[in-house]
Amino acid sequence: MNNTDKLPNAPKRWDTSNGHSPMANLANHFHPITEATFKFIDEHTFKVSILKGKYLLKPGDICEHIYFIQKGAIRAFIKEGSKDITTWITTENEMATSIRGFETQEPCLESIQAIEDCELVAASYKDLQHLYNTSLEMNIVARKLYEFYYRAAEERAYISRLSKASSKYLHFVNTRGALLNRIPLKYIASYLGMTIETLSRMRSKLVQKK
Amino acid sequence: MNNTDKLPNAPKRWDTSNGHSPMANLANHFHPITEATFKFIDEHTFKVSILKGKYLLKPGDICEHIYFIQKGAIRAFIKEGSKDITTWITTENEMATSIRGFETQEPCLESIQAIEDCELVAASYKDLQHLYNTSLEMNIVARKLYEFYYRAAEERAYISRLSKASSKYLHFVNTRGALLNRIPLKYIASYLGMTIETLSRMRSKLVQKK
Repeated sequence: MNNTDKLPNAPKRWDTSNGHSPMANLANHFHPITEATFKFIDEHTFKVSILKGKYLLKPGDICEHIYFIQKGAIRAFIKEGSKDITTWITTENEMATSIRGFETQEPCLESIQAIEDCELVAASYKDLQHLYNTSLEMNIVARKLYEFYYRAAEERAYISRLSKASSKYLHFVNTRGALLNRIPLKYIASYLGMTIETLSRMRSKLVQKK
Repeated sequence: MNNTDKLPNAPKRWDTSNGHSPMANLANHFHPITEATFKFIDEHTFKVSILKGKYLLKPGDICEHIYFIQKGAIRAFIKEGSKDITTWITTENEMATSIRGFETQEPCLESIQAIEDCELVAASYKDLQHLYNTSLEMNIVARKLYEFYYRAAEERAYISRLSKASSKYLHFVNTRGALLNRIPLKYIASYLGMTIETLSRMRSKLVQKK
């Protein structure tokens, strides 16, 4: 069962009259891909539009797609009792999926939610496995993408382990400051593991020091 | 400058009279590698012995090696003021390195310390890059290894985001319970972001409930 809010009738074929699928261009940026791989990605990735507040994935879903964000912002969260814990926030030109859910193809534990109106490009698990088996260079692309995103996962683990709210806030400002004037504070507070009141206090303190 | 406590004169060539390098066997387990790749890994990986308490890496070092643990346990930690924050603990049959440090080849931020006497097998950054460029199948191995370890990194981020000490402890018991009777409590407490007193209280509570 899939209880998400995705548009069900997205076209399955990329319109190449305006260029290649952004997913193919991204792959090619990490390592040159062949014409055949360009063609396969163009033919098997598709646009998904999702409105602010709607869900790409809910707990129990099988995560069948990985998304490249062309426009908008997305967060993932888990529940601890009645509380949301935001595990990541990501924006345009980044990839997004449930890592564990996509790779294991077992029911997901987390929710993935659009926190702005989003334009995405989607690729399916099945098509990606086909590419890994038929286009050796896609394994090079994936290895390099993982190197990049693994570092980002370590970074998220690092920020969540800092014990002082001020250290967390300063680290966030230094690494992802642009999100502060864009993403609702409630999500940033939930990502940093602090209340909105504490986050607001941190912000005012820093502004006064400037 | 490298201020670690590694043995400086480790032999550079694997003694294949007792079989292939464990690093080659690990690679082959994820995806079949060629004889040439077996030979290269056998010739370019080497044993490292390190005593409990000693360091493989300290902040400011360039992380030149990735290690496969044959015996023992290792942790990574960062400093927040005078406090240690343990970011991971890993044991035999696992890989260990500074992800960011190894991939960027920039000075490391964290320390990596043996917390038991360890027997390791090491591969260098330079040799791994050579393998990626010459043995296409090693990119398949690396892609699969990353899929596996990326999930583990997400898992670490997840546990560190739980706000209740009891939730963190229970999650640890369920996922890595074997470490509880092996690793000093001070490291587990530091990994879980709680004091040793809180961790001991959690343990007694759970024992009473049994």
